[in-house]
Amino acid sequence: MSAEFLEHVEQLLLVDHHVHSIYAHEGDEARFQNLLNEASANPLRRPEAAYDSQVAFALRRWCAELLDLEPHAPVEDYWKRRAEVGENEIARRMTGAAGVSDWLIDTGFKSDDVLPRSSLAPHFTGATHEIVRLEAVAQDVMATLTDPSDYVETFRAALDARPAEVVGAKSVIAYRVGFNQDLRRPSDQAVATAATRWRDEIDAGDGTVRLMDPTLLSFGLHCAVDERLPLQLHTGYGDNDIDLIESNPLYLMDFLREHDASGVPVLLLHCYPFEREAGYLAQAFETVYFDVGLSTNYVGAQSPSLIARSLELAPFGKIVYSSDAFGAAELHYLGARLWRNAISSVIGRWVTAGDWSVQDAIRTVSLIGRDNARRIYGLD
Amino acid sequence: MSAEFLEHVEQLLLVDHHVHSIYAHEGDEARFQNLLNEASANPLRRPEAAYDSQVAFALRRWCAELLDLEPHAPVEDYWKRRAEVGENEIARRMTGAAGVSDWLIDTGFKSDDVLPRSSLAPHFTGATHEIVRLEAVAQDVMATLTDPSDYVETFRAALDARPAEVVGAKSVIAYRVGFNQDLRRPSDQAVATAATRWRDEIDAGDGTVRLMDPTLLSFGLHCAVDERLPLQLHTGYGDNDIDLIESNPLYLMDFLREHDASGVPVLLLHCYPFEREAGYLAQAFETVYFDVGLSTNYVGAQSPSLIARSLELAPFGKIVYSSDAFGAAELHYLGARLWRNAISSVIGRWVTAGDWSVQDAIRTVSLIGRDNARRIYGLD
Amino acid sequence: MSAEFLEHVEQLLLVDHHVHSIYAHEGDEARFQNLLNEASANPLRRPEAAYDSQVAFALRRWCAELLDLEPHAPVEDYWKRRAEVGENEIARRMTGAAGVSDWLIDTGFKSDDVLPRSSLAPHFTGATHEIVRLEAVAQDVMATLTDPSDYVETFRAALDARPAEVVGAKSVIAYRVGFNQDLRRPSDQAVATAATRWRDEIDAGDGTVRLMDPTLLSFGLHCAVDERLPLQLHTGYGDNDIDLIESNPLYLMDFLREHDASGVPVLLLHCYPFEREAGYLAQAFETVYFDVGLSTNYVGAQSPSLIARSLELAPFGKIVYSSDAFGAAELHYLGARLWRNAISSVIGRWVTAGDWSVQDAIRTVSLIGRDNARRIYGLD
Repeated sequence: MSAEFLEHVEQLLLVDHHVHSIYAHEGDEARFQNLLNEASANPLRRPEAAYDSQVAFALRRWCAELLDLEPHAPVEDYWKRRAEVGENEIARRMTGAAGVSDWLIDTGFKSDDVLPRSSLAPHFTGATHEIVRLEAVAQDVMATLTDPSDYVETFRAALDARPAEVVGAKSVIAYRVGFNQDLRRPSDQAVATAATRWRDEIDAGDGTVRLMDPTLLSFGLHCAVDERLPLQLHTGYGDNDIDLIESNPLYLMDFLREHDASGVPVLLLHCYPFEREAGYLAQAFETVYFDVGLSTNYVGAQSPSLIARSLELAPFGKIVYSSDAFGAAELHYLGARLWRNAISSVIGRWVTAGDWSVQDAIRTVSLIGRDNARRIYGLD
Repeated sequence: MSAEFLEHVEQLLLVDHHVHSIYAHEGDEARFQNLLNEASANPLRRPEAAYDSQVAFALRRWCAELLDLEPHAPVEDYWKRRAEVGENEIARRMTGAAGVSDWLIDTGFKSDDVLPRSSLAPHFTGATHEIVRLEAVAQDVMATLTDPSDYVETFRAALDARPAEVVGAKSVIAYRVGFNQDLRRPSDQAVATAATRWRDEIDAGDGTVRLMDPTLLSFGLHCAVDERLPLQLHTGYGDNDIDLIESNPLYLMDFLREHDASGVPVLLLHCYPFEREAGYLAQAFETVYFDVGLSTNYVGAQSPSLIARSLELAPFGKIVYSSDAFGAAELHYLGARLWRNAISSVIGRWVTAGDWSVQDAIRTVSLIGRDNARRIYGLD
Repeated sequence: MSAEFLEHVEQLLLVDHHVHSIYAHEGDEARFQNLLNEASANPLRRPEAAYDSQVAFALRRWCAELLDLEPHAPVEDYWKRRAEVGENEIARRMTGAAGVSDWLIDTGFKSDDVLPRSSLAPHFTGATHEIVRLEAVAQDVMATLTDPSDYVETFRAALDARPAEVVGAKSVIAYRVGFNQDLRRPSDQAVATAATRWRDEIDAGDGTVRLMDPTLLSFGLHCAVDERLPLQLHTGYGDNDIDLIESNPLYLMDFLREHDASGVPVLLLHCYPFEREAGYLAQAFETVYFDVGLSTNYVGAQSPSLIARSLELAPFGKIVYSSDAFGAAELHYLGARLWRNAISSVIGRWVTAGDWSVQDAIRTVSLIGRDNARRIYGLD
């Protein structure tokens, strides 16, 4: 296999365009075990079962060495050692080894459990930027709004008043109502009506403010586009709050047909098991990009097959890298490690067979790992 | 490749957790040829075309030797020889070579064509257990019931009075109405009403008693769970009675959200081409298990790719082995042979690359091939 | 790997059962670039991005030599050189190298941009035949019909009066209304009513005659079957006019249940990413065949995985070869080149491992590449 190509993959400084922060506090083993199961929305009754999984095997294979253990260290040893080292020092070691120049942090998920982005610098190698979660903005707006008929202007103003470090927006509409919805731009009147109904539901309920309304969710997407914020959409694999079948990005085609003329990037996240569908959309619409983050970590040794599937229909200028790591920084490193392993193996095989030239291989890896994201998010 | 690992895979005594009996009588070549096509519900007009298929090639490759022929023996020679040897002797040779300690026999399909479980002992190496088919119970109940408003109690009583050798229940609701249904527990009143309607339909019809009612089918599932019987569900690949698209196990998510707290195992059978979806459900719900039986045989040389896909999101404690063999005992052996070949190749490659340790590989294979099923069905 | 097998794959003269003509005139670079993106229905705003893709890499790898360039020649050199050589000479070189004995030309797409079949002989090595596009027939009929209530007879007569070189029919109903429709045979009265409505829409519109009516589209399918014309159906991957999710061939099961007794072949084209679903249908229905054309070219170096997926459930008598090339004759050659590479690699691996015999491998490749299509279309 081409040494020049392999060297390039190893040395490339990545942009991790969708990732979360690390735990703010030390935790017990069950927290760590639950992290190894992405799909269960509830705490596991038998969390130790999560150790028998691709992600746990991969983590022991690749992260143990950075905690001064042998590769494949037994789970008992691994847990003991990581408890000794602690979340912050783990983050220093793992992000140091990840080879990531820029982390785009989604701050909208379990934000009480993790460090705010502003506290990451001592523990993170690489610059950090922020992705604003649209549903979190909506919920904050609603929590403080006096008159729900002011929702349209207040939401727009809140998004417009975002801090300078925000380089994109993310929506979890897939988790809330799925994509099999009418996502065309709603009228201001329809938004105001929906906001009023939502306020009534909050007042009639237990005080929880959780946005589940398709009109308001859709409104969020359009506002982000109006602000010309690159728009990240969770698709596919995630926890069992949502029917996976409704998170198939193919349901977005009507939205994308209307959207494509805007030129604002739409980034399909994760996509598993709909990578081929995502690749199709990335070819069909000039604004569509996608990654196979999250699933790369969770399929572990099977990630070369996943990465290979991502390299089918999508033009190579439309694929980006992410880890979607959360909480434990092993996942921040593992995403990069498995991505380098997989792309070396998959593209390296094509180079060896003569299907691709070394030069094309090197340029493609640079696009996917770094350049596409730098261009989309204006990171230069 | 690790000799220790390969040896372990070869020696492991399997539990075949979903399989059928063998033919009760000798048959003609067309019967054998039709068996090589699983998807056609009708007899093939050109049954000889089924010989040009992965399953036929695999059968000639692996089973010919056990019938004293060369591997890849021509189909004419193969058919002539198997007719000489006969179904019972074939069963003795094939089950002897399969390395299966326990066969869990589904007795509810074409039961007039195959031997009852109680007659298998002379021909089968390994213990046999029984899986009760819920739709067969329902049809037996209805065939003898005087007053259909007694259906609720009579069905429950019939299930409760099952023989001691019954270790689980199976439903083919996928074949009858598909999964895109409301599968929440129906009220007793709704069940009685549906039973009365069914009786009226039987009386108005040609005497055939075939359960097609969603309420009664759903009731069967809930009764099995109430009895704490591990519940096998046909999903995916099967004959063309059902729209394959409606047998996608993702349609079960509402049912599984309600069900998961019961702790009763739900076993998704076959799953092709929805293995990734099944693996997702096995991670998302603690009661969900799955296998890729049936399809392993029918994709033949492509089975390593199938087995690899099954080793993605599902924790390894949630995957089980089955052949789903029926009728001709070559299929009982072939399932095991192809599974061993495939899992040796797939996991063996990870061991060789250093992605998995030999110890993890050995333990994982034991879980999938034997231990998970022993635990689920209480076989010890 | 078996030299006998590899030699057979290289020497086999193929039938390309679904392909288009070549450009009638020289064009600019944007036209060529747009051709490398199949999924966008609109001209690309940044057409140069299409060069970073599997199809472009594969084209430079395999076609450059036939234009006197080095493999992987830079895109600038490649474009300059192909402009020098010209479309007709490119066609002569590419079809000469493709090793195709018979091209079945679909003449119904962008017919003003490409040469009529009758003009291909000087540029094409191999015989040509014609596939009639049902929607084009329907639109021609409607454009000239005085009384729309005569639609039934006029359409039937037009199809019946087809030239002798027509060996099959094709429908793009997937692009017009998707498969999730009632495709049962409509009554003549329903067709006449639909035709009258269509005429009213044409009269009320801008004069464009584009068939979008499910009843008339379905009528076309049934007429082709009545004429016993092998019926090609676009499925899966294509441009973004249609929701990809609605072009899943599994939605055809009701139609196929009714259709199968006719014995008229139905050929599912392309199928990506629904190859497994297509293979299932090819096993489930004796009239169903499929190919993975179009996608073979567009996934390039990933085509062995695609070809492997096509070799699962379908009996080998039910798989056919196509390129679905259009416009630039590199695609006519590339389809054959990638197919030979992929099938050599996939089946060759099985032969080397002993899973398949050389004889079975050779016969299977002959069926898929040549014999199945010769039988279906009566080419002898």
